[in-house]
Amino acid sequence: MSRIDGRTPEQLRPVTIERGWSKHAEGSVLISFGDTKVLCTASFTEGVPRWRKGSGEGWVTAEYSMLPRATNTRGDRESVKGRIGGRTHEISRLIGRSLRSVVDYKALGENTVVLDCDVLQADGGTRTAAITGAYVALADAITWARAKKLLKPGRQPLTGTVAAVSVGIVAGTPLLDLCYEEDVRAETDMNVVCTGDGRFVEVQGTAEAVPFARAELDTLLDLAVLGCTELATLQQTALQTAATD
Amino acid sequence: MSRIDGRTPEQLRPVTIERGWSKHAEGSVLISFGDTKVLCTASFTEGVPRWRKGSGEGWVTAEYSMLPRATNTRGDRESVKGRIGGRTHEISRLIGRSLRSVVDYKALGENTVVLDCDVLQADGGTRTAAITGAYVALADAITWARAKKLLKPGRQPLTGTVAAVSVGIVAGTPLLDLCYEEDVRAETDMNVVCTGDGRFVEVQGTAEAVPFARAELDTLLDLAVLGCTELATLQQTALQTAATD
Amino acid sequence: MSRIDGRTPEQLRPVTIERGWSKHAEGSVLISFGDTKVLCTASFTEGVPRWRKGSGEGWVTAEYSMLPRATNTRGDRESVKGRIGGRTHEISRLIGRSLRSVVDYKALGENTVVLDCDVLQADGGTRTAAITGAYVALADAITWARAKKLLKPGRQPLTGTVAAVSVGIVAGTPLLDLCYEEDVRAETDMNVVCTGDGRFVEVQGTAEAVPFARAELDTLLDLAVLGCTELATLQQTALQTAATD
Amino acid sequence: MSRIDGRTPEQLRPVTIERGWSKHAEGSVLISFGDTKVLCTASFTEGVPRWRKGSGEGWVTAEYSMLPRATNTRGDRESVKGRIGGRTHEISRLIGRSLRSVVDYKALGENTVVLDCDVLQADGGTRTAAITGAYVALADAITWARAKKLLKPGRQPLTGTVAAVSVGIVAGTPLLDLCYEEDVRAETDMNVVCTGDGRFVEVQGTAEAVPFARAELDTLLDLAVLGCTELATLQQTALQTAATD
Amino acid sequence: MSRIDGRTPEQLRPVTIERGWSKHAEGSVLISFGDTKVLCTASFTEGVPRWRKGSGEGWVTAEYSMLPRATNTRGDRESVKGRIGGRTHEISRLIGRSLRSVVDYKALGENTVVLDCDVLQADGGTRTAAITGAYVALADAITWARAKKLLKPGRQPLTGTVAAVSVGIVAGTPLLDLCYEEDVRAETDMNVVCTGDGRFVEVQGTAEAVPFARAELDTLLDLAVLGCTELATLQQTALQTAATD
Amino acid sequence: MSRIDGRTPEQLRPVTIERGWSKHAEGSVLISFGDTKVLCTASFTEGVPRWRKGSGEGWVTAEYSMLPRATNTRGDRESVKGRIGGRTHEISRLIGRSLRSVVDYKALGENTVVLDCDVLQADGGTRTAAITGAYVALADAITWARAKKLLKPGRQPLTGTVAAVSVGIVAGTPLLDLCYEEDVRAETDMNVVCTGDGRFVEVQGTAEAVPFARAELDTLLDLAVLGCTELATLQQTALQTAATD
Repeated sequence: MSRIDGRTPEQLRPVTIERGWSKHAEGSVLISFGDTKVLCTASFTEGVPRWRKGSGEGWVTAEYSMLPRATNTRGDRESVKGRIGGRTHEISRLIGRSLRSVVDYKALGENTVVLDCDVLQADGGTRTAAITGAYVALADAITWARAKKLLKPGRQPLTGTVAAVSVGIVAGTPLLDLCYEEDVRAETDMNVVCTGDGRFVEVQGTAEAVPFARAELDTLLDLAVLGCTELATLQQTALQTAATD
Repeated sequence: MSRIDGRTPEQLRPVTIERGWSKHAEGSVLISFGDTKVLCTASFTEGVPRWRKGSGEGWVTAEYSMLPRATNTRGDRESVKGRIGGRTHEISRLIGRSLRSVVDYKALGENTVVLDCDVLQADGGTRTAAITGAYVALADAITWARAKKLLKPGRQPLTGTVAAVSVGIVAGTPLLDLCYEEDVRAETDMNVVCTGDGRFVEVQGTAEAVPFARAELDTLLDLAVLGCTELATLQQTALQTAATD
Repeated sequence: MSRIDGRTPEQLRPVTIERGWSKHAEGSVLISFGDTKVLCTASFTEGVPRWRKGSGEGWVTAEYSMLPRATNTRGDRESVKGRIGGRTHEISRLIGRSLRSVVDYKALGENTVVLDCDVLQADGGTRTAAITGAYVALADAITWARAKKLLKPGRQPLTGTVAAVSVGIVAGTPLLDLCYEEDVRAETDMNVVCTGDGRFVEVQGTAEAVPFARAELDTLLDLAVLGCTELATLQQTALQTAATD
Repeated sequence: MSRIDGRTPEQLRPVTIERGWSKHAEGSVLISFGDTKVLCTASFTEGVPRWRKGSGEGWVTAEYSMLPRATNTRGDRESVKGRIGGRTHEISRLIGRSLRSVVDYKALGENTVVLDCDVLQADGGTRTAAITGAYVALADAITWARAKKLLKPGRQPLTGTVAAVSVGIVAGTPLLDLCYEEDVRAETDMNVVCTGDGRFVEVQGTAEAVPFARAELDTLLDLAVLGCTELATLQQTALQTAATD
Repeated sequence: MSRIDGRTPEQLRPVTIERGWSKHAEGSVLISFGDTKVLCTASFTEGVPRWRKGSGEGWVTAEYSMLPRATNTRGDRESVKGRIGGRTHEISRLIGRSLRSVVDYKALGENTVVLDCDVLQADGGTRTAAITGAYVALADAITWARAKKLLKPGRQPLTGTVAAVSVGIVAGTPLLDLCYEEDVRAETDMNVVCTGDGRFVEVQGTAEAVPFARAELDTLLDLAVLGCTELATLQQTALQTAATD
Repeated sequence: MSRIDGRTPEQLRPVTIERGWSKHAEGSVLISFGDTKVLCTASFTEGVPRWRKGSGEGWVTAEYSMLPRATNTRGDRESVKGRIGGRTHEISRLIGRSLRSVVDYKALGENTVVLDCDVLQADGGTRTAAITGAYVALADAITWARAKKLLKPGRQPLTGTVAAVSVGIVAGTPLLDLCYEEDVRAETDMNVVCTGDGRFVEVQGTAEAVPFARAELDTLLDLAVLGCTELATLQQTALQTAATD
């Protein structure tokens, strides 16, 4: 069976990672997973939130948002509604936890990095693209900080790399990196965040229609590790290339 | 190795399920997982939200909240702060999805059930106790509606049962049903929601300190299925007993 | 004339006061006035709000809330609505003022007690049950603080005791401690807060249907003092009994 | 003992009632109790809130607010803070209940009157001045509606008149109509709302410092009835005079 | 062509400026432009917002609001809605910028003046009346501060005077100081803020129906300068008169 | 005198207009004025807001927002703060009014177009770039609607074209299209919106430091008309080119 867009079940969509997209941010990446496009910026500032002052440790946090017309039907702005929805909260927290899993706070020192992930166009997998892009933006912000002598010499705040991908079962077939049309038809949908060496940071699986069996779960996990490993390679390649700006 | 409270690694805390706790709600349960106590009420009303009118289908949703002094340190009320936090949003959505996984909307007809899960005392595992208790409250509300002739004859809106438990790795050992002290020390923390026949509805695993390997994940999933199966039995026992009110 | 539940006009509903209900709070009471059940917790913390720092005086405040399904018809959560309603504000302020009337701020020292009164089940008189229960929780928190050496030796922050009860005129008859059904039918409704020695802390009378004459007001005040005195005795009895936890 | 401003204990401050203050509102009154000035407007509109449609009955509601510099120290605007405070809520509700006590909803028909009471300058007794002025604005709006043939012929929506005054004990002496300086020093503070024939609509007494005895309460009530009766006369006089606009 | 109210095209409405309206504020003015009445208070406080501390410079800011029934149809209160509308924001900012244009922050020293402009009755031109009145209130607050020795001797924080007026094209004719009925019919509407010597502080012109040509713009600017000059004279006259309070 | 970026005083920055940027929106443009980049999407939907139903007329509105790290220093998200700031409100309203000035509501029929202008990178002139880009997006949405037969045949909802530019006086020299560094140093700052035939839709001039004279205003208006005319040509060129998507 071939997929809507002609991919094989275990194939990622075309991924592009454009570094240095913004002239202002310390790290910035426009990442695309097919038609999903997310602008990820990393803002590095000296100092930490009040509850962490004097600890000698840094902080990393994330905020996710969608432009109102990133989707097929226009959504109301959360700023206009005056409140952040549950989905936005949930994804912002997931991105923050995922990135923090590869950060050594002591090595970062009392500095803060805020990762803003704004979805410019959505076609499924926005949170996984956001995590994958945010890692590259974070790495660039760390490099910037080192060049500015804002980090203690000889310390590496990044303990590894992190990437994420969605997997799901559509019409009985396990698929990697679902586009929107596949996502809405999926019986089971899972987002998996892995480190570059194939270990798990987050596993979030949801039965959309019918509960799933252990064997299905195992197949999906295999597929996800495969996808994350491939994304880790793409991240490394991007980081070894000169930024566009 | 024995646990803080003397349990074996694969042992649940004492679970109590007190039905008919509230005189007003169509279904109500005070559930405890050890010192964690959650009041779950099911409010059954005729009619559905506007976006579902005329569909012939019902709706089930959930709201989770903690009393300010349910925890060791008093937390601010979200009503006073004027906004719901990300954690509350996330858990409310999880409970709603979990319960909907065992509901046949057509059989429910155009009726709505709201599940309120209010944590009166917290000692770890509040969301898993909430899901487990909410199922029993939902079952009671369905029974009430059938007695009131609010359901079509011969239809069963519940397609199965659902329960949830936390699992985690503490000091290298996989443990079932973490209490608060174990939870804060866990390297990996996972909440698993299963149907009564051992299939998965939700799997949410998070590496708190270090990423986890596939083998660890497999062990945790085994443990969780074990716990959920035991909880399913306790739910059935409770439902076969006359309610206390 | 006998009342809906068989009581005489000047009879309280059965009152239970269960101390030590919560394992976390410094004082905690589950109080019931018939089917009205309120969980009152007292959270004692060192320090005072900024506007009181350096004064040598403490602070006592209260927050009242109802669980959504405490009532016959489910009410929306104020946290979800994003704002606190006028009734909640009004009652929180009443509870705070009532408790402060028996507190010597100097003797309390720069410490704060927050009284949370959460209505688990409502059947009329929730605010009066809350005040009556909160006093017991406050007394327990003071005892706890003394044992922890957080109070200056030889000082007693409580200058008396406080309790509250509702009275009203239903079908021309003055009644003590209205249940919900009586409350909705009352021509006049009054909440009275008294100290243990029968003096007044708060008197709040409202003509629901027709204005009331001075003679009616006088009868209601007599009835309220009677009820408060009886509640003061029940509070003392409870405080002299070993807590359940 | 003479008072701060030379009055006798049972003397009101100078009261002025200026009708027709606004060119837009159906009824409008600028009332002053000494230096307290409140602009009361009555907005009459055909139709009722949704929950009352088809009942054949009208609705009357009130909103109270203070200009930021009505007081000695500037207060933050509640619109800027994004939430209404407890005090504002409490007073708005009190004004609404007080005015509704003299309204026959059937005679009003399905029409709504909103009473806006905005304090332009505060010197104690703002809520009692608001109630007293709002009654006159309401009476004018009813007259306007009758002239416009918006009321059923031969029906009188007003069943009586209503006025309010504060009383309190300052330095052991019961005083009528407290100004701000007296109010802050009062041991006991009471707001009383009466109908023109001297019956009670609302009684709200608070012990600010020490609980008060029954005898004190009785004296205060006597004083309040005296004041309200005098205010009722002033209202009638104002209503019999041609409006200034 | 004569105007609705009989004025010539280049004629202002009757303007009254009543100083010392409030007993509490350091400066206060009730200004009327015809039936438009705005209460402007200036609150002088020592100290500046945190971001300006230690700069040796002062701050001036403004807040504009309308009473709900200032207009022909009652508007909802922004405090009740929980958010400030765009129009209110826009006008508050305009008033603040306009007044700041004649303030020397160094001469003001680390002091803050808040200008509250509350529209009691609206009939077009509320923002221009607010600016014109706020200037007089500000001048009075500065005089008050000098008398209290809160300003450095020999320094004058006001570098000039400021006034504002609306102009517009109605049925092809350029008019000065539009009343509400003219405003709603205007093809082009402009608000102009000028210093006393006829220079521009703000020019805000909007084509309501059809875009306007340069020649029309030039005529409107001429008219506006004329009006602002006349208002500057009225401000000076008012300031040379003894205040009413 | 040459400018920071080498331009002459009357020279625009390089302008690019990339149509068809988004796969979902009916019209979408990524516009850049130098380093200022704004994503403008036009969402066309059948139907109008409730207050306009049955009028036979359409509606056009706009929302402006900045990504948090569009600027040199990260700004807080308005969705997280829970309220929209005055500047955002002001600009959204300006964009909406500007676009509506070239719309014939009758010809549009009962359809709504929402223009979302999200600033991806800011370097001065974000509101003028937003208006200029939004016009092109609107034109594309109208073309889309005509192709879908959603417009009445033979009707043209656009009555002209609209573009905007900033002008200002920096160090005494009038300049066209200020970049951020020029903007912060400007003594006077003006935003001008013109139709393609050189008439004015909006003129908003502000004296940042010192009030400006009529002669300066005249020079700035000349410069602005020049810039808008040039932008109108660039808009037409872009619309005659095939979209990139």
